[in-house]
Amino acid sequence: MSQPYTPTPRTRLVREADRAVYDREAAYRILDEGFLCHVGFLVEGQPFVIPTSFGRKNDSLYIHGSAASRMLRQLKEGVPVCITVTLLDGLVLARSIFNHSMNYRSVVVLGTATLVDDPDEKIEALRLLSEHIIPGRWAESRQPNERELKATSVLRVPIDEFSAKVRTGPVIDDEEDYSFPTWAGILPLEMKAGLPIADSRLDPAREVPAYAKHYSRKR
Amino acid sequence: MSQPYTPTPRTRLVREADRAVYDREAAYRILDEGFLCHVGFLVEGQPFVIPTSFGRKNDSLYIHGSAASRMLRQLKEGVPVCITVTLLDGLVLARSIFNHSMNYRSVVVLGTATLVDDPDEKIEALRLLSEHIIPGRWAESRQPNERELKATSVLRVPIDEFSAKVRTGPVIDDEEDYSFPTWAGILPLEMKAGLPIADSRLDPAREVPAYAKHYSRKR
Repeated sequence: MSQPYTPTPRTRLVREADRAVYDREAAYRILDEGFLCHVGFLVEGQPFVIPTSFGRKNDSLYIHGSAASRMLRQLKEGVPVCITVTLLDGLVLARSIFNHSMNYRSVVVLGTATLVDDPDEKIEALRLLSEHIIPGRWAESRQPNERELKATSVLRVPIDEFSAKVRTGPVIDDEEDYSFPTWAGILPLEMKAGLPIADSRLDPAREVPAYAKHYSRKR
Repeated sequence: MSQPYTPTPRTRLVREADRAVYDREAAYRILDEGFLCHVGFLVEGQPFVIPTSFGRKNDSLYIHGSAASRMLRQLKEGVPVCITVTLLDGLVLARSIFNHSMNYRSVVVLGTATLVDDPDEKIEALRLLSEHIIPGRWAESRQPNERELKATSVLRVPIDEFSAKVRTGPVIDDEEDYSFPTWAGILPLEMKAGLPIADSRLDPAREVPAYAKHYSRKR
């Protein structure tokens, strides 16, 4: 069942309000199809936007990184952060330049990151992150040791304040443009996996696991 | 010929310095293969990260949007901005969880956006933006009229201060992990175009143009 969500003045879409999605479940489906986010934070008055992977559990996002990285060091101070996930679905080739657009789905989460201190939550968050990117991989990998866990920071960002925006469907041209002599339509775009490339030091007899062979982001 | 570039303290990579690319031409190749960027800016102490398309001409990035949008209204005030472009090339499935990674190429540009007032530069920037996304489309579309140009704002961000980061190549595992019994290798990822879908109101005799039929981001 869809949970109700009331946007704040900061996350209510004013323009293109028809593209707004104020439905937590719908936003989570977008988050779960992606695994790359762009994290925005401030360093001495300058915004930085850094790409990184993420995981989700219930109403929390998790990101991780080297404990020594600029991003992780900044964010664990409890500063405001913005995490944006964008899925690109296609180019909308209208008859007029002005009505060109993109089909996409995006979620913008505003919040404050908290360092995950609890060792159980930390390892669980790392597992979620891994499973979010490629389900099935965690259990077949050599697990993190103490030294590696210490070198890794995990941050939790609650999904309290967010907006989601979706543009889908066909070209929408001005009525007088439909007779304009050009091709019009949708060019679908999708992130696709190619054939897995085995490591040169791998035993050639070892088979490619199904999660790599049939990798897809569609959920 | 590659232009020299000296990073600032804000854009010098300290960690994973081997992934740093301080070469303007290499950074521009990354920018030119992408067309979706994530723009970071500040509104009352809160960072926002918004996806949008972009174009490039020489050492300038151009973004555009409705003159009424929050992003455009904020940015034309001459506030600090960060524009990040990320190309995802694959998942790096190492033997240990810790050495899992992604192959990617990204560019982070720090700067200040300026509103493009000059009508000639504005239309040229819109043409660049369109040609950056889908070369060949501009000339075949109904051109912007006065009303549409007025409703659109274009911003220029100089590519003065930037960093680029690239992770490419195979899995790198700890020596003692190479005997760990799991599959390891690269899962390539690529944004691919599907078959163009003609608009329902299009004359069925009109052929799909080559730029849509054979669309590729590879440059």
